[in-house]
Order: sequence, then structure tokens, then C-alpha cells
Amino acid sequence: MKRRSFLKGAAVAAATGSAGAFPAPAIAQQTFHWKMVTTWPKNFPGLGTGAQRLADSITEASEGRLTVKLYAAGELVPAFEVFDAVRDGHAECGHDAPVYWVSKNKSTPFFGTVPGGLTAQEHNGWIYSGGGQELWDELYGEYGLRAWPAGNTGCQMGGWFQNEINSLDDFKGLKMRIPGLGGEVVNRLGGTSVNMPGGEIMPALQSGVINAAEWVGPWNDLAFGFYKVTKYYYGPGFHEPCACLSMIVNLEAYEALPKDLQRIVRDCAAAENTRMLADFTAANGSALQTLIEKHGVQLRHFPDDVFRETMRHGLDVVAETAAEGEINRRIYESWAKFRKEAMGIAPTSDYGYMQARALYKES
Amino acid sequence: MKRRSFLKGAAVAAATGSAGAFPAPAIAQQTFHWKMVTTWPKNFPGLGTGAQRLADSITEASEGRLTVKLYAAGELVPAFEVFDAVRDGHAECGHDAPVYWVSKNKSTPFFGTVPGGLTAQEHNGWIYSGGGQELWDELYGEYGLRAWPAGNTGCQMGGWFQNEINSLDDFKGLKMRIPGLGGEVVNRLGGTSVNMPGGEIMPALQSGVINAAEWVGPWNDLAFGFYKVTKYYYGPGFHEPCACLSMIVNLEAYEALPKDLQRIVRDCAAAENTRMLADFTAANGSALQTLIEKHGVQLRHFPDDVFRETMRHGLDVVAETAAEGEINRRIYESWAKFRKEAMGIAPTSDYGYMQARALYKES
Repeated sequence: MKRRSFLKGAAVAAATGSAGAFPAPAIAQQTFHWKMVTTWPKNFPGLGTGAQRLADSITEASEGRLTVKLYAAGELVPAFEVFDAVRDGHAECGHDAPVYWVSKNKSTPFFGTVPGGLTAQEHNGWIYSGGGQELWDELYGEYGLRAWPAGNTGCQMGGWFQNEINSLDDFKGLKMRIPGLGGEVVNRLGGTSVNMPGGEIMPALQSGVINAAEWVGPWNDLAFGFYKVTKYYYGPGFHEPCACLSMIVNLEAYEALPKDLQRIVRDCAAAENTRMLADFTAANGSALQTLIEKHGVQLRHFPDDVFRETMRHGLDVVAETAAEGEINRRIYESWAKFRKEAMGIAPTSDYGYMQARALYKES
Repeated sequence: MKRRSFLKGAAVAAATGSAGAFPAPAIAQQTFHWKMVTTWPKNFPGLGTGAQRLADSITEASEGRLTVKLYAAGELVPAFEVFDAVRDGHAECGHDAPVYWVSKNKSTPFFGTVPGGLTAQEHNGWIYSGGGQELWDELYGEYGLRAWPAGNTGCQMGGWFQNEINSLDDFKGLKMRIPGLGGEVVNRLGGTSVNMPGGEIMPALQSGVINAAEWVGPWNDLAFGFYKVTKYYYGPGFHEPCACLSMIVNLEAYEALPKDLQRIVRDCAAAENTRMLADFTAANGSALQTLIEKHGVQLRHFPDDVFRETMRHGLDVVAETAAEGEINRRIYESWAKFRKEAMGIAPTSDYGYMQARALYKES
């Protein structure tokens, strides 16, 4: 897509009319140049390409009055330093997964995804219209940050395992790459969870540092080539029923923008939120077929008792965050209320429909 | 939300530098004033309020260089004349449901929803990333129009019935408000389908012109008060597994906009697409509880054989559109391929997850 040329770096003053005709003085048109640091490899499918599309859309919608230049993981800062880099103002914004910042605050995963939690559609319902965004603003405000949903992977797979998971016992001795609160569930089942950025998973699997790993889903997992090391692919997972990714901004930088550019940032983030999920939804189906038919991957479903127990531990781990502090308690309670309502209506909504749709097989 | 003041109606020329420094001449800043006609009652929950939010977001993100003034159904044109009004340039844009335009072209419902079709997330996958938008552009291009997703109700309910639906026989003699291709399914089961805008359903139910009606879901159906006339509420439906709503624009008006304003229109539409679905997702759960607990509504689920037969007829009706013409065939084939992949991955994605989540009951 071609961008219109714009007056780079120039501050263009808008013409002002006679003072009486306008309720407020016209505001000089300034240009702003933002750096966007990300937790993703350069142009990685969906995650990296979506972050790039977001950066470009802001630049284009603002006609270059706000340019956003993207830096892949490691280009300006390592993946797991994105939060601090934006907090410190080293970069004005970032694109990341809120689950990565659980070491900053136990409640950040609620804004990404938690074990036994909400689907992508339900998650958006909570964030945009169920009080989630306001709580997110409050929590991140403590760090001088703000963030909005800016992408989603949809329901994630359970992961890649060197050995089959036939019972809960098979979690014992597992060394698994799994971030956020899902990692704590693996620990409680007798395994050891490790967190590492996407780009480090493949070497860790190959060297045997880990013997299981979850990353995202068929499209992204195919891109990293995990099928070369392990053949058992479990799905869906219990731990990331969606993964909401975010555009994180330095609050001071955001507040320095005029209102129209703030609006463009928020709307472009919301637009990318829906576009990235669409990319994943469209690409996962054929990627799964490729994994199975071309690469001999064995698709597996966790047994019911594994689901029951991982859900139980998951909900425990999630509930325990409420004890961390007053804001953590309010985040948990708001989310738990929303989850209850969402599960209540699921059988008369998407869940019930997908059941009904599966009843009829075309001949 | 307060909008910044802007130079209404004034064309502000951007300062130009020396010619050599810029690859293209700076473009004069013009203002544009668009009318948005809609198929919804004024400020109707979700549909009307979402369309208003979309209009406001474009006005604000463009700092008033493109103002969008909304007209509710009947204010400028009746609900079902929105398509023609935008086509004729009587209004520059509209907010509507593509299923309403099935009389213009049998394939328009594919861009909204069709019986036995895609969930909201799957639909977005097809439109944004599976070739759907390109086909939509082509079809609407024949009418001098373009449209993008700009809202979604999520999975719709099966509707309100004066009598219980215990078998397929109970569709005989039914006079039901149900638009799009779902109406044709009701006809094939021996009923009579009628289409009418939302605002006309309640009087038709009260006078006995119809004895069943589907509208949207708990939140919207509560607002219209259908529970006052009939108590049997079936859900989910077979006919509208989501309802994608659209921002429809007059192509000539759209192409007269500079690139940055075109980008703002597209991004604001995509942002509203996700925000409106979030509103419905958040509001439906408690609205359903209110209907049951406060208004004594009887929630019912269609029997499995009704689902099987409505799915079968639905897929027939959908497939028959392919015979209408070359573009219709390509729309059907693209959609059918996407549906097959979506159904293939559903058990290892949202559908499988919601099944697994339901296995564990909190004590």
C-alpha cells in the first residue's frame, strides 16, 4: 500500500479565523515520531506482521503526523524488556503479550489470557464492555503505562510433547515452555514451567533443555518448525483460550498527543485487534492440515480427567491473584463475574451453535 | 466525549516547502460532510448506539475534516431503503445488515450471515483474511458501492414462538419474521417467512400478523419487549450464527476522499466491528437472566432433528445461490471452502475449548 507523502518533521500551523468564530484556538499541527518495540521476531506471521500493519495504519491514518517505526525483538531491546523500555520512555510504545509481564504484577495475565478463562470473543466483551479496560488502565497507570487490545491469536493449542499425555502422571518430570499463570498449573502437576520468547523455543527443544512447549497454534507453530523435533501435538489447551496482545504506550507520550491522534491510536489498535484474529482464524485450519498430512504430526486431545484437573488448578491459580492487593482483587472479581455469565449463555450462543452445526454431516 | 474544535467547512492549505524536498505536492486539507442512513431505530442498544459511535469516531479521528451525521431508520429514508439511498448518493454512507439486501442480489447474505454458516470469529476470518472482502468489493462494485464489517451481534437466538417447537411439523402454519436465506428455510418447512425492520415486529406480533419472530438476541429482544407477547424463547438459532453489520459507502464519495481519510473510515469501521460485538457479548448474559427470572420467559432448545433438518435445508438454500451467476458461484465456493476448514479445526479450537471448560464445575 502506498502512503501519501507528508511533511516530515514539519510543524504546520493551521490557519486561524477570527477569534469569535471558534470556541477554542486552532491547535498547531505537530508531527510525532514513535518507536514501537515488540516481543516478536521480525515479520513473524500474524504477530509480527500484525504489529507492523498497526504501525503503518497509524502512520497512514494520521497522514504522517504520528509516524510509528517498528523494532522486532532484539533490534532495540530484547523481547522481555519491552514493558520496561516503554515504561522508561526508551520507546514510546510496544506490541506485546500481557501474560509476559506476570513478574511485574500477578494480574497482568487477565488482560491477555488465563487458564480456564475466556474465549477471544468473551475476552473482548470483558475488556471493551465489561469493565476490563478501566481496570487495565488503573493497573498499568501505576507504571506510567496504558494498553489496549491490539491483536489476538484465538484459542491456543495445548502444545508439543515428546511423550504422550495419557494421564495426569505424565505431567511429572515435564520441562515445558509455558508462560503466565498456565505455567503455575504445570508446576502444580509436578512439572517445571519455563518462560522464554518465541525465538528461543526451538533451540531449547532441540538441546533437550525442555521436552515440551506451547507457543501459539498451527499457523505459528508450523512457522517455527516444532514438528521437526516432536510429533505429539495436543489441542486445544487449557491455559490460553485466547491470547490477547496489546499495544502498550508510555502514558506521558500518549497524553502529549492531540485528541485526534489519540483517537487514531485507539481506533487503529481496535482495528488490528479484529484483523489479527481474522488472520489466525483463516490460517490455522490449513496449517493444521499441513502439519498432519505433510509432516506426520499426531494430533491429540487431552483426556477429560486432565482437562478437569488442569481447569481446577487453573481456577485456583487465577483466584489466588486476588490476594495480592486491592486492585488485584477487583480485577479478579470483575473477571470471575464476567466468566460466570459467559459460561451461562455459551450453550445458547456460539457453543450451542457449534454443537448444533456439527449434528448435520453433508453427504 | 468532547470533540476538539475544528475549522468547520474551511479548507486549510498545508504549508509547502521547496519543491525538491517533497516527492509529491502537499494536498489541500478539505472538509467533507457525510450523511449516514441506518436500518436501526434511534440509539437502539448496540445497533443504533454502535452506528453512532462509528460516526463519531470518524469525525473525531479526522478532527472534523470528515464529519458523519447519523440518521435513524425513517429520519431520512425508511430502513429498507438504505441500500438504494447510498447507491443513489442521497446519503454518502449507511449502517445496515447485508442480509436485508437479498432482494438486490441473492449473495448479499454471505457478507452478513447465512443459515448453518460461520460464527462471528470465523466470519471475520473469511472476510478479512480469507478472500471474502475482495468478493464483497466486486459484488457491491456492480452497484457503485463498497462495504466493510462494522459491527456484529454474535450468535443470534432462534426466536420467539407462540407455541412450542417439538418437531419439524410445528413449523407448518408458522408466520415468522425472519430475513435473509433463513426465511427460505422456514418456507421449505411449511411456514411463511416475512421480512420487516425491527421497529415493526412488535405491532405485527401483537396484532397476530405473525406468530413467531426472530430479531437478535437477549439484549436487543429485551429492549423491544417481545416477552410481553410470547414466552417461548428458542436459542441458539440455525439461521444467523452471527450477524455481521456493515458500513456501506457510495464508492464515488469514498474515492473523493484523500487516502488518510479513506484509511480512517476503514479503520474506524474495523474498530466498531470489534467494539459492537463486545457490547453484545457483555450484555446478552445478564439480559437472558432478566428475561428468565424477571419476565418468566421459557428458554428452549430446538430438538436435534429440527437442527439437522434446518441445517440441511439451510445448506441447500445457500448452495443454490451459486446458480445465480458467475460472481455468485465464486462467492459460494470461497465461503464453502472456508466453512469446511473452520469446522475442521473447531474441535481443537474454541468449540473444543468450550466443551473442555464445561467439564469442570466449580464447587
